[in-house]
Amino acid sequence: MSAPLFETVTIIGIGHIGSSLARVIRRDGLAGRLLVLDSQPEHRAQALELGLADLATDDMAAAVAPADLVVLATPVGSYAALAAAMAPHLKAGAIVTDVGSVKMAVVRDVGPVLPETVHLVPGHPIAGTEHSGPKAGFAELFQGRWCILTPPPGTDRAAIDKVRAMWQAAGSMIEEMEPAHHDRVLAITSHLPHLIAYTIVGTATDLEGDLQQEVIKFSASGFRDFTRIAASDPVMWRDIFLNNKEAVLDVLQRFTEDLTALQRAIRWGEGDTLQALFTRTRAIRRSIIDARQA
Amino acid sequence: MSAPLFETVTIIGIGHIGSSLARVIRRDGLAGRLLVLDSQPEHRAQALELGLADLATDDMAAAVAPADLVVLATPVGSYAALAAAMAPHLKAGAIVTDVGSVKMAVVRDVGPVLPETVHLVPGHPIAGTEHSGPKAGFAELFQGRWCILTPPPGTDRAAIDKVRAMWQAAGSMIEEMEPAHHDRVLAITSHLPHLIAYTIVGTATDLEGDLQQEVIKFSASGFRDFTRIAASDPVMWRDIFLNNKEAVLDVLQRFTEDLTALQRAIRWGEGDTLQALFTRTRAIRRSIIDARQA
Repeated sequence: MSAPLFETVTIIGIGHIGSSLARVIRRDGLAGRLLVLDSQPEHRAQALELGLADLATDDMAAAVAPADLVVLATPVGSYAALAAAMAPHLKAGAIVTDVGSVKMAVVRDVGPVLPETVHLVPGHPIAGTEHSGPKAGFAELFQGRWCILTPPPGTDRAAIDKVRAMWQAAGSMIEEMEPAHHDRVLAITSHLPHLIAYTIVGTATDLEGDLQQEVIKFSASGFRDFTRIAASDPVMWRDIFLNNKEAVLDVLQRFTEDLTALQRAIRWGEGDTLQALFTRTRAIRRSIIDARQA
Repeated sequence: MSAPLFETVTIIGIGHIGSSLARVIRRDGLAGRLLVLDSQPEHRAQALELGLADLATDDMAAAVAPADLVVLATPVGSYAALAAAMAPHLKAGAIVTDVGSVKMAVVRDVGPVLPETVHLVPGHPIAGTEHSGPKAGFAELFQGRWCILTPPPGTDRAAIDKVRAMWQAAGSMIEEMEPAHHDRVLAITSHLPHLIAYTIVGTATDLEGDLQQEVIKFSASGFRDFTRIAASDPVMWRDIFLNNKEAVLDVLQRFTEDLTALQRAIRWGEGDTLQALFTRTRAIRRSIIDARQA
């Protein structure tokens, strides 16, 4: 039997994504030892119950001192404090990666805090469901999905390749990208859709009581899809918006302009304008089907 | 063998919904004869090929003169002209229904044109996919879904009950409602979500070429769900927005106010505001799961 990819892996935050990755690591024997740091006692207990950790602790030194790879899998807003706390305990040559949905903030908050002997390879597996917590994880979550890595210029190639190898084992397709570019692409493909879904579901919760009941009853007509998106983890999404402010505000501005133009077309009965847009958007769906992402 | 529910049924427009209903009528023997009127020769040919019509024609008199039930299944904007064309040929006691996503416009456009001896029972099966055309139909489309009927006050009860019986056979749950109330509920559950999905996908199509390619590539992160909605039939949706203008503009205004408030919270880094909303919207999802509409 060949040696595992990493002697010791430590996952910080054993939620939906962290526990899914732990399952992959266990399934494929990617780590000799798998340690978990989590501030919530019930998450630690579940990680042990599910067999996802050899040790589950809230002691940073115990968790990261032996680690060859540390995976940050908590909401992005917690990264700066966690990085500062782990920095003194990391061994030379250790790799730190993450699974966050924004990447410029990782380079900004985590990079400067880590010792120079540690390799930072920020990552973003584009996968997830609206469910949260260690029990919601599953090893197949990343299968056939993209994982974007945004290593800063000059990052050790061997370190990048070990992180790549982990995501390849998870079944992901891997792309390397500038963090700023990542944040701009994700602002439109993920952050804006989530913001809009949260908004429309919020608008519905403000309706008068009987109307709100009927919105739930007749949700199958389109609204339901938005509620699924708007059931995603609140803290995780708060942190994404706070940490990708510029790109989100930019695409939001474009969206609002386009929506205002449509609103005007409806008000003035400009059917041709509506039909032309609705025809154009069909083509995008076909492109996605062709790209096998549907 | 008991007599069919209707001697002769005529479906006007054998698209996704019309052909799905035709499949139900055939499967359950709800009609002695099933006639189809469609302006597109290839739709008529497909209706005959698929065994969904005893006669497929573009001659209004031939299509509706023998009908005990006429089902309008074309985009809502075509109803006024179709109703005027069919009125002289309808027999006394015939029932006219429809499957359109707006209901006040049906009462307004179709009601006054029909002879007094004909019963108008407007209907809206809340079902559909993003696909179009006779081949996209299937008999199970309406199974477990709501169908809303909005008969004007004083409509013959026996006529309403026959339309109800047809949708019950299709597996639908049936609700009777005022047309204005229907249009308001659907504006939020269906029309606004579609408008927003069309807008965001349109915003993405305006991006620079390479960014647009990446939006397609990384669509799995939320955007994909919107593209499915935004691939719905362009003419059908144009007509829905033009015919439910007031209710759509009203909910759109509420939505825009809420989105502007969120935009401000992101700009000023008000994490608590974001988290509070994102927590509230999770509860709505749970209500939908409890209502078994998820």
